[in-house]
Amino acid sequence: MGAVPSDIEIARAARKQPIFEIGAKLGIPAESLVPYGHDKAKISPDFIAAQKGRPDGKLILVTAINPTPAGEGKTTTTVGLGDGLNRIGKRAIICVREPSLGPCFGVKGGAAGGGYAQVVPMEDINLHFTGDFHAITAAHNLLSAMVDNHIYWGNALDLDLRRITWKRVMDMNDRALRQIVGPLGGVSNGFARETGFDITVASEIMAILCLATDLKDLEARLGAIIVGYRRDRTPVFARDLKADGAMAVLLKDAMQPNLVQTLENNPAFVHGGPFANIAHGCNSVVATRTALKLADYVVTEAGFGADLGAEKFFDIKCRKAGLSPSAAVIVATVRALKMNGGVAKPDLSQENVEALRAGCVNLGRHIENLQKFGVPVVVAINHFSSDTEAEVAAVKAYAAALGVEAILCRHWADGSAGIEDLARRVAQIAEDGTARFKPLYADDLSLFSKIEKVAREIYRAGEVTAERAVLAQLRSFEEQGYGHLPVCIAKTQYSFSTNPDLLGAPSGHVVPVREVRLSAGAGFVVAITGEIRTMPGLPRSPSAERIRLNAEGHVEGLF
Amino acid sequence: MGAVPSDIEIARAARKQPIFEIGAKLGIPAESLVPYGHDKAKISPDFIAAQKGRPDGKLILVTAINPTPAGEGKTTTTVGLGDGLNRIGKRAIICVREPSLGPCFGVKGGAAGGGYAQVVPMEDINLHFTGDFHAITAAHNLLSAMVDNHIYWGNALDLDLRRITWKRVMDMNDRALRQIVGPLGGVSNGFARETGFDITVASEIMAILCLATDLKDLEARLGAIIVGYRRDRTPVFARDLKADGAMAVLLKDAMQPNLVQTLENNPAFVHGGPFANIAHGCNSVVATRTALKLADYVVTEAGFGADLGAEKFFDIKCRKAGLSPSAAVIVATVRALKMNGGVAKPDLSQENVEALRAGCVNLGRHIENLQKFGVPVVVAINHFSSDTEAEVAAVKAYAAALGVEAILCRHWADGSAGIEDLARRVAQIAEDGTARFKPLYADDLSLFSKIEKVAREIYRAGEVTAERAVLAQLRSFEEQGYGHLPVCIAKTQYSFSTNPDLLGAPSGHVVPVREVRLSAGAGFVVAITGEIRTMPGLPRSPSAERIRLNAEGHVEGLF
Repeated sequence: MGAVPSDIEIARAARKQPIFEIGAKLGIPAESLVPYGHDKAKISPDFIAAQKGRPDGKLILVTAINPTPAGEGKTTTTVGLGDGLNRIGKRAIICVREPSLGPCFGVKGGAAGGGYAQVVPMEDINLHFTGDFHAITAAHNLLSAMVDNHIYWGNALDLDLRRITWKRVMDMNDRALRQIVGPLGGVSNGFARETGFDITVASEIMAILCLATDLKDLEARLGAIIVGYRRDRTPVFARDLKADGAMAVLLKDAMQPNLVQTLENNPAFVHGGPFANIAHGCNSVVATRTALKLADYVVTEAGFGADLGAEKFFDIKCRKAGLSPSAAVIVATVRALKMNGGVAKPDLSQENVEALRAGCVNLGRHIENLQKFGVPVVVAINHFSSDTEAEVAAVKAYAAALGVEAILCRHWADGSAGIEDLARRVAQIAEDGTARFKPLYADDLSLFSKIEKVAREIYRAGEVTAERAVLAQLRSFEEQGYGHLPVCIAKTQYSFSTNPDLLGAPSGHVVPVREVRLSAGAGFVVAITGEIRTMPGLPRSPSAERIRLNAEGHVEGLF
Repeated sequence: MGAVPSDIEIARAARKQPIFEIGAKLGIPAESLVPYGHDKAKISPDFIAAQKGRPDGKLILVTAINPTPAGEGKTTTTVGLGDGLNRIGKRAIICVREPSLGPCFGVKGGAAGGGYAQVVPMEDINLHFTGDFHAITAAHNLLSAMVDNHIYWGNALDLDLRRITWKRVMDMNDRALRQIVGPLGGVSNGFARETGFDITVASEIMAILCLATDLKDLEARLGAIIVGYRRDRTPVFARDLKADGAMAVLLKDAMQPNLVQTLENNPAFVHGGPFANIAHGCNSVVATRTALKLADYVVTEAGFGADLGAEKFFDIKCRKAGLSPSAAVIVATVRALKMNGGVAKPDLSQENVEALRAGCVNLGRHIENLQKFGVPVVVAINHFSSDTEAEVAAVKAYAAALGVEAILCRHWADGSAGIEDLARRVAQIAEDGTARFKPLYADDLSLFSKIEKVAREIYRAGEVTAERAVLAQLRSFEEQGYGHLPVCIAKTQYSFSTNPDLLGAPSGHVVPVREVRLSAGAGFVVAITGEIRTMPGLPRSPSAERIRLNAEGHVEGLF
């Protein structure tokens, strides 16, 4: 067996087809594609609107066990499954999120899949791409500037300077901006207050863009953003500042899905990328809905593990966008399951069936959870070369005991040829039509009860605690008419509990809700458990130090 | 005579040609164009490099009298002259600057020409365009993050926290960010210090991008940026932080010129847009040089009036890029000259030949100044419907007395048909080959002497003053090896003097140099006279409040 070249080597060797040919495969005429270079395009709003009457294809969610440093390969499997479905003769589109630019200069590499299951052009996708995130940054910061400008010119809306909740954003890992005081400098600059920056993917506008159904809905949601409160605690909205129209103008191109291709020249929509903690962590509704009109199968992914990502995909995105998934794939790796069974990272390459079996409880818990949403489940074992036959067999046996099939997938090394079995199984489940999707909780449950329901039934907490002030805040949201919204719980992605070190399948733990925030434009209430950073920092030796253009003008060091 | 529709109505009614057809007119093959939509494209670096051996066309500078609230129409005339040259059978390319996004939401409209002399698509050009400014913002702020990150992890380079000169930027009018203190929040966020934000067009990286000759030169210039100083006053460079490579990666697409078209389907390069006060205020060297290889005539503009814009175009851009302009066009209007002659704005529509004659001293001074650079001059009288025949005749007579032709131009109302006379005259001057371009001062003059020379010979100051600390700073720049650099004087654009209310042709005034800054990457020393804002604010009722998408998805209120 020959060594697989690096992701970037594979991506550069890709024989890309012109993007108009990729569009043509989906029946999109050239004039309905807005090209960005020869290998990226946005789909025009007119074309999208014209698809309304067409029937929907089947929606497949790819999710995963809790992430570990061993790596699971969720995006890689999403891309691989899309290629696999195309290989077996189905017309499939992949829908994934856009990566954030800032973190590429820190520690992480790109987020466009890996091995022989990638979307390309990966360098562009990981850097400026089609400018969507820059547009979100601009729209967010326009609103911020209008808030301070309003105060500067007399504060007619009577905003309480201590209660301004709208911060600024930047698509950069810049911890120095987390907490600042400004404007300083006296009369000509404004009124000093405490504020700060989040990373762009944490902007409520990112979540709004990903949940809005069209430009009109986008503008309405932008107007509904709460920028802060008056002394009497009544909210001030973006529409009160008349900022909604200009923000929508800045976002009009960003709202259109981006079409690219996989290494195997199959179509992929890469669009939107909200955080999966303080937001819902899925690609845009517009992309998913458009893909469903154009394909028999749409394969999409949700952020982090299934406890966070899949739950939000179901309870926020599917609920609000009226989507009904046909099947869910849980990605697991032998290595990650062994970590869940207590094996340390340096020892992961040694066979350890016993630890693996112990770690399978994490997988089992996620299977059980997904079934609560009425969606049939299949497990994808994303193959690593160190996996032994006995280990793979143990995972299969574990899943089988739960009535679920676990299928070994070699898409990373072999592309679509390595994932045919999974593709056939997924297609069969979807065509059997056994899914009976329903969200976990009803809209009319109280906000705290919704949090409790997710914590108890998905995280398996014994108790949910909250200070009196937090409960009062939730009641006040309800009084203001936001009680019907779904909840979006920000929790560590590494454990079912709020303790990132508690791997496996803990239960009976306490989930403390430290803070709640209203994302009135996006349409959910965020409940924060534990410490959630919305502006990352750079490491001691950031990868930016090694990123440069080589003599041929290619990017080096990014991946 | 029918009324001319609004700029945006004209722009929307434009019959644009596909951008590949515009490229084909210049001999650029489709594969060397990187499309952004169907009406914008970047030109590939390989194609640009391949043009090296070709002869250069003739370079025409469009500059203006000092700006007044009456408006001069410099970009409009640049676009009109390009169309006019094409009309009379010359192959001409227009090279103008990209507008900044932030100010569009304040008071000003777009910056893509006006009437029947515009570049299109004007909405895109005025908003995100091809993402160049967003890339500059990202590259700038990556360096900022790396500065604070370096300090956070131990400050091995020993940067003095009080002497960090590199701030952050945002393409937004946000006065609240001018002066801030951060990072706050303790150990995990870093060491608090005073800092702030400039608007993106004021970034040194904008100037660097516009002066760099290719990607290699770009990276070298980025590395030469000084981010701050140690306690012993020795500089710390961006290359010391190993930030230059990653910044160049972020800027690799932004370095490529953007091709669009005029309303008459003639090619235009819209690329780069540095401030004309703390930077040199011209479009990119790469765009101008590439255009010269592809056309018989390249018509370009410089920022503000000729005292600032043309002087910097000659002394910084032409000197450094080895450009040799064949002619200069000074744009003047009857209205603006009347303001220079003391007429108040409400009275501008009444004929006033006497005031006009008095105001012509401003034009005369600029004519004299331009001639000092060895470049032949012609005056373009940009016609307004309120101009009377007697007034136009007076301007012509005034110019004629100085041996210069002043030509009435009606391109705003009539497109290229209205500017044929100017086009023919410019072509004749260029073909006569009388230009003997030379910069105003030699490289080896001391920095202060360079400032004095510009102030005395162009601004006609009687004296240049500077505090001892400023003089010491200049000497220290010289000791560090920067004495050969040109100077870039930041002065009010409204007057030859540093007092914006002093119109006409003042002389004998005092120019106080308040501060000097070294732009080591861009390659000039900035001398600040008077108060220069590098971060604008929004007005009481910003135009953002009126900008929105209409029912057809078109932008309203932007212009």
